[in-house]
Amino acid sequence: MRVIGVIGGGQLARMMIGPAIELGLELRVLAETNDSSARDRATTVGDFRDLDTVLTFARGVDVITFDHEHVPSDIIVALEKAGVAVRPGSAPLAVAQDKIVMRHILEDLGHPLPVWGVAETTADVKGFLDTNGGRIIAKVPRGGYDGKGVAVVTDAAQVADWLHRGPVLMEEMVDFSRELAQLVARRPSGETSVWPAVETTQANGVCAEVILPAPTDDSRIVEVAAELGRQIAKDLNVNGVLAVELFETNDGRLLVNELAMRPHNSGHVTIEGSVTSQFEQHLRAICDMPLGSTKSLHPWAVMVNVFGSMDLGRYSRLTQLSDVKLHNYGKEPRAGRKVGHVTATGTDVTDTMARARAAAEIFHADI
Amino acid sequence: MRVIGVIGGGQLARMMIGPAIELGLELRVLAETNDSSARDRATTVGDFRDLDTVLTFARGVDVITFDHEHVPSDIIVALEKAGVAVRPGSAPLAVAQDKIVMRHILEDLGHPLPVWGVAETTADVKGFLDTNGGRIIAKVPRGGYDGKGVAVVTDAAQVADWLHRGPVLMEEMVDFSRELAQLVARRPSGETSVWPAVETTQANGVCAEVILPAPTDDSRIVEVAAELGRQIAKDLNVNGVLAVELFETNDGRLLVNELAMRPHNSGHVTIEGSVTSQFEQHLRAICDMPLGSTKSLHPWAVMVNVFGSMDLGRYSRLTQLSDVKLHNYGKEPRAGRKVGHVTATGTDVTDTMARARAAAEIFHADI
Repeated sequence: MRVIGVIGGGQLARMMIGPAIELGLELRVLAETNDSSARDRATTVGDFRDLDTVLTFARGVDVITFDHEHVPSDIIVALEKAGVAVRPGSAPLAVAQDKIVMRHILEDLGHPLPVWGVAETTADVKGFLDTNGGRIIAKVPRGGYDGKGVAVVTDAAQVADWLHRGPVLMEEMVDFSRELAQLVARRPSGETSVWPAVETTQANGVCAEVILPAPTDDSRIVEVAAELGRQIAKDLNVNGVLAVELFETNDGRLLVNELAMRPHNSGHVTIEGSVTSQFEQHLRAICDMPLGSTKSLHPWAVMVNVFGSMDLGRYSRLTQLSDVKLHNYGKEPRAGRKVGHVTATGTDVTDTMARARAAAEIFHADI
Repeated sequence: MRVIGVIGGGQLARMMIGPAIELGLELRVLAETNDSSARDRATTVGDFRDLDTVLTFARGVDVITFDHEHVPSDIIVALEKAGVAVRPGSAPLAVAQDKIVMRHILEDLGHPLPVWGVAETTADVKGFLDTNGGRIIAKVPRGGYDGKGVAVVTDAAQVADWLHRGPVLMEEMVDFSRELAQLVARRPSGETSVWPAVETTQANGVCAEVILPAPTDDSRIVEVAAELGRQIAKDLNVNGVLAVELFETNDGRLLVNELAMRPHNSGHVTIEGSVTSQFEQHLRAICDMPLGSTKSLHPWAVMVNVFGSMDLGRYSRLTQLSDVKLHNYGKEPRAGRKVGHVTATGTDVTDTMARARAAAEIFHADI
């Protein structure tokens, strides 16, 4: 495994470039546009929904992996039939790509989930609302991300449009104290490695801040999260990085919220926080190389996303934050767009978070 | 400053690629060959001694910097005359490029040097041999690197060939206990930052191992090295990273051996060892951005070079060394060639060195 093909040219592909160089791997990216975040390695610009484009891109590549989960299943299956190593493969991806399939499979495997149901009609939604306190979460099963395709619903009419297009996943409003994420890496030989669970904070459905490790007085939570991550990676035969988004409930349980079978926003903090970043680990895992250590390098690492614009002209204001690390995704400014992130590390979580937020704030601009 | 042009496509340019991506800078490389180490960003392949090639490469670039010091001075001056920002500039580079000029300037500035002289004839060499114990170091003033152009001389006839081509620098055989290197970064606004001095070990005139920080019971040595580095960077008006190679003598003095005005093999250890690596810092410095913290992340970090070949097929043997970091320069194997390096970090210097050596040994192959 020397040549890696990444489908999708976003910031996840971009942040694989540095680690690929250091490992001596050749990274090739199939990007959507000429100005993609990973444009430096975009050897093809084209449509990932076009089979010929993808098969041509895959020629000469040792293993295919992904920047996002929007590649249609039939394309992934066709790649595998053509003899291309795809990691994660079509079977695990089918679970990650459809939230209803994911709920069915995880339930069958006995993993802890919110109360859920599938609606095909507004009557189904009404019934689920009635038995779940009149306020539920509805999710389009495929294609959503960063809060898109997810809604809080109190009236069945709210999801009528979605229902015209197919079944809708319904979930109870979980009474959670906070959200966690468990990052795992697994390689074809079976070796599996976990980072300590992180705490994540969302703003408008989008990941905004991440703390490594998740602050807790209860070491059991960390162990349960790690074991859950390991088990799901094994059950679903994931190769590469898997992010398990979790709710920690007020009564001390962990429930699986979402799965992502790729490096994930909750794992950016591992770049500075851990001996091995999620991006390096993903590459090691899909190439079936020994996994790197996931030990933490600092008592605390805090990542804060930068939205809107990450203008180089503002770097000069960072003088007092010389230990905060910048990650600029090279994107054109746009209101609300994830354009970069910053990470601070330290021995005190409050101070570390304050420094990360101060750095992110420097880039804040209303566009 | 958004677009950086690097002249030279070696591993130093290669290791700038990852940091440039994260900072949101566009890196362009003028490489010598199609299969250069930095080929991923080689926007031009051509001869850095050809003015037209270099001027064309520099068009649209905000600042020019270097992977090596072999670019002829007239090309550098021509770039500056054409209005291109060159960092470091022609004046400091003139000092780094010619060891005789360097000795003169550093002596005039009062910096501590080995006893030295310039030979134009074998009689000059004889005279210097007679007054310096019959065993001296001779150096070709320009174009040497990694032990090339340096010889131990006991008979003037040994340097007759070199003398035909011009003056030769002569130096006493310094009675040193070990070699250190002081890395410094300085930006146009004058901000200067030092890493703790490192200890370097050479094999056959080539850097083989580096320890961060240089082990010592004498904190004065560290302070003297740091002050020397800062002062030379300021005296010579260096912008970017400066490496000052030092001899620590048996009587406790530090003498300046060589200068390099670019990221340097002695600084690779900062990638894992320090909050800010020399590669990121060099980019920040030449773009006049605030410099990053140079605090150490670990009590010890040890870098060991890999020579000959760094075959991906051997990565599978690294299972027991999951916290050692790999840096593969993507070079074709060749006996004695620097093809990569590994870095271990830890709390015990002996153990850390053992792990770094064990990882490097995995790649060792007689070619």
